[in-house]
Amino acid sequence: MPEFRQEPLSGRWVIIAEDRAARPSEFVSQPTRRAKERCPFCAGNEEETPDAVAIYPAGATWQVRVIPNKYPAAVPPGDTCSKEMNCEGDRRVASDLSQSMAPASCVARAGVGVHEVIIESPRHVASFSELTDEQAHCSFLAYRDRLRMASHNSQLAYGLVFKNCRGGGGATLEHVHSQLLATSIVPNEVEQELRSTSRHFEQRQQCLVCSLLDEELSARARIVAETSRFVAYCPFASRFPYETWIVPRQHLSRFESAATNLFAELTQLVRAHVDSLEHLFPDVAYNYWIHTAPFHVACEDYFHWRIVLIPRVTTQAGYEWATGSFVNPVAPESAARKLREG
Amino acid sequence: MPEFRQEPLSGRWVIIAEDRAARPSEFVSQPTRRAKERCPFCAGNEEETPDAVAIYPAGATWQVRVIPNKYPAAVPPGDTCSKEMNCEGDRRVASDLSQSMAPASCVARAGVGVHEVIIESPRHVASFSELTDEQAHCSFLAYRDRLRMASHNSQLAYGLVFKNCRGGGGATLEHVHSQLLATSIVPNEVEQELRSTSRHFEQRQQCLVCSLLDEELSARARIVAETSRFVAYCPFASRFPYETWIVPRQHLSRFESAATNLFAELTQLVRAHVDSLEHLFPDVAYNYWIHTAPFHVACEDYFHWRIVLIPRVTTQAGYEWATGSFVNPVAPESAARKLREG
Repeated sequence: MPEFRQEPLSGRWVIIAEDRAARPSEFVSQPTRRAKERCPFCAGNEEETPDAVAIYPAGATWQVRVIPNKYPAAVPPGDTCSKEMNCEGDRRVASDLSQSMAPASCVARAGVGVHEVIIESPRHVASFSELTDEQAHCSFLAYRDRLRMASHNSQLAYGLVFKNCRGGGGATLEHVHSQLLATSIVPNEVEQELRSTSRHFEQRQQCLVCSLLDEELSARARIVAETSRFVAYCPFASRFPYETWIVPRQHLSRFESAATNLFAELTQLVRAHVDSLEHLFPDVAYNYWIHTAPFHVACEDYFHWRIVLIPRVTTQAGYEWATGSFVNPVAPESAARKLREG
Repeated sequence: MPEFRQEPLSGRWVIIAEDRAARPSEFVSQPTRRAKERCPFCAGNEEETPDAVAIYPAGATWQVRVIPNKYPAAVPPGDTCSKEMNCEGDRRVASDLSQSMAPASCVARAGVGVHEVIIESPRHVASFSELTDEQAHCSFLAYRDRLRMASHNSQLAYGLVFKNCRGGGGATLEHVHSQLLATSIVPNEVEQELRSTSRHFEQRQQCLVCSLLDEELSARARIVAETSRFVAYCPFASRFPYETWIVPRQHLSRFESAATNLFAELTQLVRAHVDSLEHLFPDVAYNYWIHTAPFHVACEDYFHWRIVLIPRVTTQAGYEWATGSFVNPVAPESAARKLREG
């Protein structure tokens, strides 16, 4: 029987409708890999990509290599060409021009930001589950260090580390990698969470994520895995089948401040989770990202970082794009049970 | 040069980054049709689907047939089984039980709603562009009438009519159809627009959509097509490549109140648009939906209905799901130009 659930951080409604999973489908969808060409991310082909801005481990043959994105979604701070930005007749609008060239009710800003690619292995593998321990550890070090670097730039307001794995996950290259996109804007989802968590904190002097975590640990039905420092669970109003959050037990706002000694547990948990997903759905496309506090907002009391993982097993349709609400054909209680059973 | 644009109705940020369209991709993705089986939506196979709740034209051989969805995402009003809903030990939560079985900070509601399928042709065709004039007209009559019917039910708060065309658009059956999903909740996107448009109205005594439309008509750069009663344009902060809004020039809040004499122009405009899209991208998957006011909110002064059409030519990746913001590799000015020339 379908049920409507509201996720308290985003306020987003989700329709849990398991019976819909039984629909017959006339379509099959599987992004397929083209004939393998020379991969620019493989060791030995470094000259095909921009120079590294960081390598791990330091001073050795690289296991993880961070490079500027060749096709950036943002212009590096300080790199904004005033000539282009002010070019009259150009259809683009930016900064001060926005008032005249954009509809007056719209807002446009120069797309200032840092867009980097974190290549997580010198070998041609596709998934986090295929990394060595050292590569997994170095990847998380890179996520933290690059976020920390971006946080020191006063022009940047938010940094997102995210992974697109395989074609269905939005990857354009198969070789395992993640991205950092740090921008001068705070994304909508994060703005919304600042509102909901600050309101909860004002009312109850509690972090909303800490409260939710306590309740999940009491309810048990949606817990996937636990370690001494982290809990993995499928949230009550999961948008996607098998959506999982990995939340630190300790209240911590900023991933870029995370201590190195967290990473052994965290990388093991992420890897075990991806293993389970790939066991349930071989070669599954997935995304994960680090949901962390904006750089320059004093929200330490009420913002709590997490990792969100979603396998891409359903297609989003008209309803989702129209409403911002989601239809999820797998209840998170069922998803957690299957993930626990692995 | 990338640019950040904010859409004033949703507050959503979009990154317009045309250079990213040049990225090489190792993947190709095309949902493929399975071997054709007997189609339950074709004329002659009516016994494979539930009985029609409406047919068009009335009293003749049907051209458009409306049936309850066999796999509903909501429980029909009055159909909620109190036994199941109160079943202790059941992992599901609903209505009054939500306080005890869901985390206290979460909200759950019985998924009450109406979910119908509007079969838009007796023939096995896939796209709105393949309908006869009569079928197109009857489809829009059905959208309006079924929405109107749902609006009379005090248990229902919102009704969305939407089309998923082809596998990549989220369709599970190829045969041309749309859906009505009317629910006891108001979707997030609509709630947000109520906030932004009522604020604008309080401040300026104007409908924000009317203002935006005036500005688009002055700017011209994003206009796709015009008729005496409608304007089609690619919005300034389009989330998706080739996203297009069809907006009535007259301020009208509710599609279910639309006069029948609007439909000839409207269906021609929609068909011409789908034709252009299919010319640019043969067999393209797409969605459209009718964005209209909630049933029981007195927002006539400031809510303005529209049709939104999106071809599904890009894959949403980690950034979009993480942030609620979008990276769009086709500027709406380029999209509108191509659609005009299309």
